[in-house]
Amino acid sequence: MGGTNMQLIIEESYKKMSETATKLIVGKMLNDRRVNLSITAGNSPKKIYEALAPLVKNKSYLSNVHYYSFDEVPLKNEVVGMTEGLLREQFLTPAGIPESHVHFVSPANYQSYDEEIEAVGGLDAMLIGIGADGHFCGNMPGSTKFENFTYQVTVAPKYPWYKSLVNDLGERTPDSFVTMGPASIMRVKHLILIANGKHKAAIIKKALEGPVDPNIPSSILKLHPNLTVILDQEAASQLS
Amino acid sequence: MGGTNMQLIIEESYKKMSETATKLIVGKMLNDRRVNLSITAGNSPKKIYEALAPLVKNKSYLSNVHYYSFDEVPLKNEVVGMTEGLLREQFLTPAGIPESHVHFVSPANYQSYDEEIEAVGGLDAMLIGIGADGHFCGNMPGSTKFENFTYQVTVAPKYPWYKSLVNDLGERTPDSFVTMGPASIMRVKHLILIANGKHKAAIIKKALEGPVDPNIPSSILKLHPNLTVILDQEAASQLS
Amino acid sequence: MGGTNMQLIIEESYKKMSETATKLIVGKMLNDRRVNLSITAGNSPKKIYEALAPLVKNKSYLSNVHYYSFDEVPLKNEVVGMTEGLLREQFLTPAGIPESHVHFVSPANYQSYDEEIEAVGGLDAMLIGIGADGHFCGNMPGSTKFENFTYQVTVAPKYPWYKSLVNDLGERTPDSFVTMGPASIMRVKHLILIANGKHKAAIIKKALEGPVDPNIPSSILKLHPNLTVILDQEAASQLS
Amino acid sequence: MGGTNMQLIIEESYKKMSETATKLIVGKMLNDRRVNLSITAGNSPKKIYEALAPLVKNKSYLSNVHYYSFDEVPLKNEVVGMTEGLLREQFLTPAGIPESHVHFVSPANYQSYDEEIEAVGGLDAMLIGIGADGHFCGNMPGSTKFENFTYQVTVAPKYPWYKSLVNDLGERTPDSFVTMGPASIMRVKHLILIANGKHKAAIIKKALEGPVDPNIPSSILKLHPNLTVILDQEAASQLS
Repeated sequence: MGGTNMQLIIEESYKKMSETATKLIVGKMLNDRRVNLSITAGNSPKKIYEALAPLVKNKSYLSNVHYYSFDEVPLKNEVVGMTEGLLREQFLTPAGIPESHVHFVSPANYQSYDEEIEAVGGLDAMLIGIGADGHFCGNMPGSTKFENFTYQVTVAPKYPWYKSLVNDLGERTPDSFVTMGPASIMRVKHLILIANGKHKAAIIKKALEGPVDPNIPSSILKLHPNLTVILDQEAASQLS
Repeated sequence: MGGTNMQLIIEESYKKMSETATKLIVGKMLNDRRVNLSITAGNSPKKIYEALAPLVKNKSYLSNVHYYSFDEVPLKNEVVGMTEGLLREQFLTPAGIPESHVHFVSPANYQSYDEEIEAVGGLDAMLIGIGADGHFCGNMPGSTKFENFTYQVTVAPKYPWYKSLVNDLGERTPDSFVTMGPASIMRVKHLILIANGKHKAAIIKKALEGPVDPNIPSSILKLHPNLTVILDQEAASQLS
Repeated sequence: MGGTNMQLIIEESYKKMSETATKLIVGKMLNDRRVNLSITAGNSPKKIYEALAPLVKNKSYLSNVHYYSFDEVPLKNEVVGMTEGLLREQFLTPAGIPESHVHFVSPANYQSYDEEIEAVGGLDAMLIGIGADGHFCGNMPGSTKFENFTYQVTVAPKYPWYKSLVNDLGERTPDSFVTMGPASIMRVKHLILIANGKHKAAIIKKALEGPVDPNIPSSILKLHPNLTVILDQEAASQLS
Repeated sequence: MGGTNMQLIIEESYKKMSETATKLIVGKMLNDRRVNLSITAGNSPKKIYEALAPLVKNKSYLSNVHYYSFDEVPLKNEVVGMTEGLLREQFLTPAGIPESHVHFVSPANYQSYDEEIEAVGGLDAMLIGIGADGHFCGNMPGSTKFENFTYQVTVAPKYPWYKSLVNDLGERTPDSFVTMGPASIMRVKHLILIANGKHKAAIIKKALEGPVDPNIPSSILKLHPNLTVILDQEAASQLS
């Protein structure tokens, strides 16, 4: 890999990976100006949020930080979307973030979400994971166009991820979901990609070392001007 | 086109297009810190350089500005490459830029060119044109990988641009040339794309409104986080 | 003067000074993201606004630009303050700027003005003049503390500028006015200081070459990290 | 204190203060581009460097970080200056930083030091302490002009710090020393001020809450556009 391609950090364990990512995120928060962070829900960031929540809670000097979600999967017959629910549970509630500092993308506001973010000076950093199928945010194989800003994706059997989504969500499967697109993500000032575990090793190799290819949406991330990748040894095990 | 996709400026004439681009470039130069500009040679910027050279010449307050080329086509049996020759003729010599402020990429230094640029704080802006075949810099259809940083391209009959190049350069056709790649260009802080004339209308439509596609290398530019496009009406005539 | 102290541009005439400043301001506007500009009213920028208004009017590609005033002198028995009135007359009305893109500081909002600006990502540039008494914005000799953010100044006979203000405004003289303070101004990303005419020569020398001194409020501007000074030859005539 | 004045962090102990500062510094290092850090020697940062050195040592992904000193006190009859000696002992040697990434200001290069820093894109962050007499870097009460870039200070009995310096250094007392000046420091992108202990409480109050005054050089730091102050409770004990 070329020297300027990305900043690649390989830690010996998931715990170490999480510690390094936590330091980077805290470093972003510590600024004497408004800071806009976009954060991910899921398994990979669990230990980050466990460490981060007590560091952030009741800290008036972090009232400069605002939080933005980057996708939303509405759930049939439920009021709160999947991403919002997980972000609240994993971080926002334990960290005591006030509602005025929390911003969710949704089917109702997705068409103006890029503008809303631009109007506050842009996103300073985004923490993202990567799926074993190569997706990032809601940019899934088969339904991703690199030129998209925030957009809506129809849930349809023609897509390779359809079965898996229906499997996971059952009757709660929505007709569509929303996500920030690759063009939105290229405008984030700093991208932090985390991945851990053996089941991520193959896709990490493809995404970081393979060609830019819409069938592996995360392969576009290599083009981001400031990308820090933090992996555990297992996720990094197939890198050359 | 989406509101945040790019800043699209359509001027009524080539002359107006050049005036607006000149103002933008002067605006970049006027900073109380080192400014690194990458500039293009060719037909499109001719009027820009005619206006710019006298504005820059002998201005000690612009000693903060450094100039970088972004590609080089060495010419057989000649000492000076095509880009260097044109940039000197069109701008650097009439503007009286001292050698210490001029930096050329070449087959000798291309492997460290991205690092050299990073070591001076990155490029603040790059002025680029677009070819009727969709190329930008030396990123040609058929030989471009979006993930490339500065790289060398072999001149070979298998590429769609081969005949045209041989036609233009005859016995001076080199075995290879060098160019900053798409990944290099994504790191430039502000990208200024100019195009004029009817013969550019079709490719401008494809590049700005079509899908991101390596066969149209300039289609990737839409993903740049700060892109200003300045066209005359003819070049813009097919935009929806 | 040291090489990195500021970018100092001396033009042969008021007309040339205005042309260069106009280019710099247009350069700031040309960005594919929201741009927040703070602009000054008065005599010095007259020719800038004459050139700028037609360049800006009806240009949809400049809908990214927002305008902010930096001080306000309310006028007794009048609804519109002096700065607002002048900015509208000199630039905002002729340029056709929509109300949604215009932001005025006033006695009603000055206490939250710095926060309002921070919430949109800060000011990208500010165009300021300088008074023969050394003031900038409403930071007057005798009433300026360098550590001030946006603040209110009581109009009182103890200040050296009192007589002159009463002379100018007569019965319209207010009890107080508001201004962004030196600490606010240090946070603007690029400061553009213009001055022309012989009557500015002495203060330009003091402000740019003399010690930082609260009795000459503009002497603090030398500490700004990105300061471009554009003078005509008369205003620059006493510089060493 | 106003909301936008600075980011003020008060930790319960020196240990916690050091942990938070370490996270901020690591956060600065984690960027996919060259990072230029200026760091301080002395007692306050001891625990920071103890934590930082093992985090940095042998980490190839931190080869993007360069280190800059901000002052130097040459020692009579010694080859290595006081700051260089301490920085090597406290951090650079234990962290295994290669010589090519270490940059010291000295009597030999101080006149071009600001230019050298500008040529690499500026300083991304600077970690500084504060003296009980209000000094920061080598900007001492009585010998500091706010408008100074990097400069040389003559060691002379007329200065209030003379006795203390001679007391400390005895026969090694130099005739002069060099330091980056307030104007240099205003150009650093992020300033991190640390202080701990009761003996710093009075000066912290003066510097952060009092007027900008050259007799308390650190009082100018309030004007920096991005200042994070990290204190232990003792150092913060007199803040209102």
